[in-house]
Amino acid sequence: MTTASMPMLDTYPKSINLDRAKLAATIDALRSCAQACTACADACLSEDMVAELTKCIRTNLDCADICDTTARVLSRHTGYDANVTRSLLEACATACKSCGDECAAHAGMHEHCRVCADSCRACEKACRDLLAVMT
Amino acid sequence: MTTASMPMLDTYPKSINLDRAKLAATIDALRSCAQACTACADACLSEDMVAELTKCIRTNLDCADICDTTARVLSRHTGYDANVTRSLLEACATACKSCGDECAAHAGMHEHCRVCADSCRACEKACRDLLAVMT
Amino acid sequence: MTTASMPMLDTYPKSINLDRAKLAATIDALRSCAQACTACADACLSEDMVAELTKCIRTNLDCADICDTTARVLSRHTGYDANVTRSLLEACATACKSCGDECAAHAGMHEHCRVCADSCRACEKACRDLLAVMT
Amino acid sequence: MTTASMPMLDTYPKSINLDRAKLAATIDALRSCAQACTACADACLSEDMVAELTKCIRTNLDCADICDTTARVLSRHTGYDANVTRSLLEACATACKSCGDECAAHAGMHEHCRVCADSCRACEKACRDLLAVMT
Repeated sequence: MTTASMPMLDTYPKSINLDRAKLAATIDALRSCAQACTACADACLSEDMVAELTKCIRTNLDCADICDTTARVLSRHTGYDANVTRSLLEACATACKSCGDECAAHAGMHEHCRVCADSCRACEKACRDLLAVMT
Repeated sequence: MTTASMPMLDTYPKSINLDRAKLAATIDALRSCAQACTACADACLSEDMVAELTKCIRTNLDCADICDTTARVLSRHTGYDANVTRSLLEACATACKSCGDECAAHAGMHEHCRVCADSCRACEKACRDLLAVMT
Repeated sequence: MTTASMPMLDTYPKSINLDRAKLAATIDALRSCAQACTACADACLSEDMVAELTKCIRTNLDCADICDTTARVLSRHTGYDANVTRSLLEACATACKSCGDECAAHAGMHEHCRVCADSCRACEKACRDLLAVMT
Repeated sequence: MTTASMPMLDTYPKSINLDRAKLAATIDALRSCAQACTACADACLSEDMVAELTKCIRTNLDCADICDTTARVLSRHTGYDANVTRSLLEACATACKSCGDECAAHAGMHEHCRVCADSCRACEKACRDLLAVMT
């Protein structure tokens, strides 16, 4: 598995109690999803029918904030607290599920929602896969 | 109860299915805690014994990111998704507990850790109080 | 001058080459503005005339992100790099001016835009006041 | 040029007054740099000689926050305000220069600083390239 975060993780000077390739893949999925949600919110704001997309915009903004924060927390291994990581991954998977469902409902009409829904699904799966090996 | 967020919340044009004063107090506690944790991380970096404070710094950075994101999510009420909010509040209370415990362990030696621990305790309580009225 | 950030700044273990009261006041103005802009964006999304407020929402989101980041950078004093701080304060003052102008244009119709415009004006002034004593 | 942000940008429903491939490349460079800086700060915290790396950690944290915020602002095109974008890109290039210089000074000893310095250089260049076509 090749990911953008992997070269940096390979340089980490101490042990990490998680599979590094899986961790890097999750961080990359989180960063991609945060970017897709930020862009989708703005694309929705540019649609003529923006009044019908306000729930989608709000969910996009929430998901972007939560994914960015989760990527940051997963990137810190010093004094690793599994309880914080686990509960945040749960919240993030919930946000990705919610945003993925909302975007999927508009995917037939708006291509940006289709791309964003795919990103949310991939990110939700990455969060749940990481949770599965943590417990 | 007077809080900095209250004047803005008072102008919200639609109904909010949470007590506005309690919501504003929680947002204010989250913002204060994010600020305290950001400052405490930097103060720890300035201590001569920084090598013994690396876990505290990491926990401070995690808590700051999670509190800022939770404040943002709580500030969005359109199409309110209780599942996302609830799971994020749980994660945030967990992070505040973890950071409050870590800072409390250094409170006798570092005044910034004492101030930060108090802020984390207050924020954890605010998150749990809001969770209690949501369910 | 009493501000929420002052108790924490008072505990900083090393010297800070800026007036602490002015620095704390700026950080507080930045945090308040970030919160006002986040809330105003969401309030705009709840207005029936949201289609006429998309520029305001976008400016609110930009200003919120920039103010939060500037508050964080100002809270870090170790190895203080004046060039970074100064250029970021310039960018932040520019964002606050832009958002304040846009919100002021809707202030007569939307109370949340009026409150947010006031917060942006105060934050722009705080950034420029701090810049003035840095040079 | 292929970048992760390009598929999403291709779906944007309105015109964008910037070259889309160049914009996508800049957003990707910003996201990569934010991630590298976040990871480098934590790797520095794990080094035995952390006391000599506190300036590097602080610069990493500043650069990560500024790059993430700049990526978000560049992802919003509605009502595009060139003054805000330009001043933020200037601040971001300054932060990347500062962090790149600091990390480069430790690159011989710490591989994570070498990888991070490269990411900062690439991001600084991307910001300046985009600024060059904006004016």
